[in-house]
Amino acid sequence: MARRLTAIGFDADDTLWHNEQFFRMTQARFAELLADHADPDHLDERLLAAERRNLGHYGYGIKGFMLSMIETAIEVTEARVPASVIGEIIAAGQEMLRHPIELLPHAREAVEAASDAGFRVVLITKGDLLDQERKLAQSGLGELFDGVEIVSEKTPDIYARIFSRHGSGPEQAMMVGNSMKSDVLPAIAAGGWGVHVPHDLAWELEHADPPGDRTRFRELAHLGELPALLQQFL
Amino acid sequence: MARRLTAIGFDADDTLWHNEQFFRMTQARFAELLADHADPDHLDERLLAAERRNLGHYGYGIKGFMLSMIETAIEVTEARVPASVIGEIIAAGQEMLRHPIELLPHAREAVEAASDAGFRVVLITKGDLLDQERKLAQSGLGELFDGVEIVSEKTPDIYARIFSRHGSGPEQAMMVGNSMKSDVLPAIAAGGWGVHVPHDLAWELEHADPPGDRTRFRELAHLGELPALLQQFL
Repeated sequence: MARRLTAIGFDADDTLWHNEQFFRMTQARFAELLADHADPDHLDERLLAAERRNLGHYGYGIKGFMLSMIETAIEVTEARVPASVIGEIIAAGQEMLRHPIELLPHAREAVEAASDAGFRVVLITKGDLLDQERKLAQSGLGELFDGVEIVSEKTPDIYARIFSRHGSGPEQAMMVGNSMKSDVLPAIAAGGWGVHVPHDLAWELEHADPPGDRTRFRELAHLGELPALLQQFL
Repeated sequence: MARRLTAIGFDADDTLWHNEQFFRMTQARFAELLADHADPDHLDERLLAAERRNLGHYGYGIKGFMLSMIETAIEVTEARVPASVIGEIIAAGQEMLRHPIELLPHAREAVEAASDAGFRVVLITKGDLLDQERKLAQSGLGELFDGVEIVSEKTPDIYARIFSRHGSGPEQAMMVGNSMKSDVLPAIAAGGWGVHVPHDLAWELEHADPPGDRTRFRELAHLGELPALLQQFL
């Protein structure tokens, strides 16, 4: 590991703070609301299909999730769902948009270690613009980041652009996140390092296999292991 | 006008391309769908109230507009709106997300003039991340911009940060847009120039009076007048 690093990117949702659990809770509430119309497994499947279908229009985030839930509710009930249930779905989504941030273990310590070691530290996240900003503000981690990039998709090109803007290019950058598909693989494809910190909950659309070439790939059990990894680059 | 400019910011919606007209058309369709339940004026009022109430959660853009329409439909019908109507509202919103871009007169010419004159040219827009990116890609203007900033709010701080990143600070920057409230006033408050190019349609929540101090304020009838204004800064 002779080559020096200049920038460390951190994913936000389910890397620094809990996120997927709020989607799961809301989805459970959704299943409850539609219990008379669809069994939960079938409903999950239809919702996932709607999310997949709508991703190109809505992008990532809670607002699109709300709209896909409403669409699915109409679909599975063949338009017999009462408006009051739609109202409850909206209320559940708005609840998500207000949920307080809970940092994951070692999140602050990991970001501080990267910052203290002199790396440019960048938050790189998908989702609704305002909602991601709110969560960052609430997290109390804002002042540790040199840059914040809320993007519509995490592609190799996007990583190359971000790490050129905030560091000295993707080859000298490391992306840390829970999504193999969005955080690890495209950062490695851009020429950088990809560090996977798995979270026990993952959205089905974020699934991917680890990279074949593991030269620039690392897997950590949790963020508490990041400071020691960064030491190797100093 | 001795002080040189280094950066020109352009607003997107209703400055470079049509936008508000699609909201108006959808709102007319919304009124049609709910014609049996509410008169159009009352409905507009309730929808505006919902948009205002939800702005802090949803931010700007079409997805939030869709959710506010659905909420309003439930509200004005006291939850008697049929699910099929909600389905139609979603369809109308998705239609908006697909609408083709129509450039406003002189849009390309104005951005090209700013770019050719050697200014750093930045697109600065609010709204849904993915939707704004889609529109920029479709506009064919993408390659003219040195930077693209999709933001959740247009405040003096945001302008200061953007014009420091892309130029030499807000004092040597000019923001061009159709919204007095979002484009002109905060850019001037940040220390820069604000150029108002009115559009005949404006969303009620974007209304504001012109600045009292007009030193750094200009008003243009259309973007075709921008090249001549920029000449004065060379």
